Amino acid sequence: MEHRTKLTVAYLGAGFSGWQLQGDVRTVQGALEDALARLVGGRRVAVVGAGRTDAGVHARAQTAHLDLPVAIPATVLPQVLNSGLAADLRVRKAVSVPSSFHARKCALGKHYAYRIRWREPDLPWQGLRTAVAPPPVELRALKDACIRLVGRRDWASFTVPEVAHRSTVRTVFRIEPVEGRDGMAFHFFGEGFLRYQVRRMIGALLEVGRGRMNVAELEHLLDRPSPGAPLPTAPARGLTLERVYYRSSPKIAS
Amino acid sequence: MEHRTKLTVAYLGAGFSGWQLQGDVRTVQGALEDALARLVGGRRVAVVGAGRTDAGVHARAQTAHLDLPVAIPATVLPQVLNSGLAADLRVRKAVSVPSSFHARKCALGKHYAYRIRWREPDLPWQGLRTAVAPPPVELRALKDACIRLVGRRDWASFTVPEVAHRSTVRTVFRIEPVEGRDGMAFHFFGEGFLRYQVRRMIGALLEVGRGRMNVAELEHLLDRPSPGAPLPTAPARGLTLERVYYRSSPKIAS
Repeated sequence: MEHRTKLTVAYLGAGFSGWQLQGDVRTVQGALEDALARLVGGRRVAVVGAGRTDAGVHARAQTAHLDLPVAIPATVLPQVLNSGLAADLRVRKAVSVPSSFHARKCALGKHYAYRIRWREPDLPWQGLRTAVAPPPVELRALKDACIRLVGRRDWASFTVPEVAHRSTVRTVFRIEPVEGRDGMAFHFFGEGFLRYQVRRMIGALLEVGRGRMNVAELEHLLDRPSPGAPLPTAPARGLTLERVYYRSSPKIAS
Repeated sequence: MEHRTKLTVAYLGAGFSGWQLQGDVRTVQGALEDALARLVGGRRVAVVGAGRTDAGVHARAQTAHLDLPVAIPATVLPQVLNSGLAADLRVRKAVSVPSSFHARKCALGKHYAYRIRWREPDLPWQGLRTAVAPPPVELRALKDACIRLVGRRDWASFTVPEVAHRSTVRTVFRIEPVEGRDGMAFHFFGEGFLRYQVRRMIGALLEVGRGRMNVAELEHLLDRPSPGAPLPTAPARGLTLERVYYRSSPKIAS
């Protein structure tokens, strides 16, 4: 009898080569599976994530499912797993779910945030989840451009050529730019995002904010999807997977 | 003509095997000297710290001096060095100083802070510079005990036996316990601290707060200094070197 369990995990990306299990490098999935193996006496327990975050990308609430081969109450799982994990990876929550639950296939939407500072932080613990984008950036133009990136579009220009054989059509529900004291945050809500999509959306928005791209050129990237379009990819350090939405989650406002 | 320069640096301790240069491991001094060597064309420039922080210990304003063999204005040094350093180590300030300045020998005092949370933080970026000390802890007893650790005393019981052949007498000017929402911070001001001294002072204070040691036993550790006294050493993760005081720094209130 296996016990399907849904995990909510948070991590600082700097110490991981991304989510997905890979040979000898440290990954989030690998660290979780190692901790689970120790817990269940060496048996391998696969952890299926809602999506793969790239190297250096953070998560406040990444979601995953697994099938526990032992009857450990889900409520104690965070504490038990956390005691065997490094401080940059935390299991925040574990709940029992029906065996029909699948972290990736059941996901209805995702919320990513991208954080920018205008200058390097003075203290190393201030900028761990923030990328630096030196001024000048025209904030009005940058914020106005956000609305152009909302809707059901073909995002091929915003991803990498390798994935171009799969469908690159996705719906972006909403983008919220929020001005802060030393920088800015962009909140992206969508049904799902392609590899590098958010970081290349930020790359494009900053090009607009710097006057190096105009709105017509931005529209062109969407109207004529072209894998490998010459767009800067913003650094992983600024990107955080904030939340994954499921049927039981509060509805995403659109 | 060499140019003596005083650096103020901040670092997150988790990624370093302490301050001091050692073989193949990553240390703060090593990272700074590597960055300087790249800057001055491969020549080794020694960086002399105000003190050695141990593996895992953080700094908000560690101080060091070095002799630059090239005429780079001190004001541009932080930006130039930071561009070659990882994000967990920042050069905050560089100023030209007389060649008589010595970061360790001229230091008049130090401020360390030790931060405690009562439970593991939910998010990995909340607890990077904080140790976890599970309740119950009697805060009144713990705060009252702080005053017992102030003054010019022999701290041999609070350090490791290896350093016991040197003088272990030091003056602690002041200890400030500050209660927070989820935990507590202790600010230690002193002329200097022995290896592990602050972490073992915290270890002792928590023993008092837990009712496992009384004030008489605490006094005994000071009255009869005994290297290797059975005291817990609080984890490095909670300790931050906040500041090093020199003649030109604002006076330490005592």
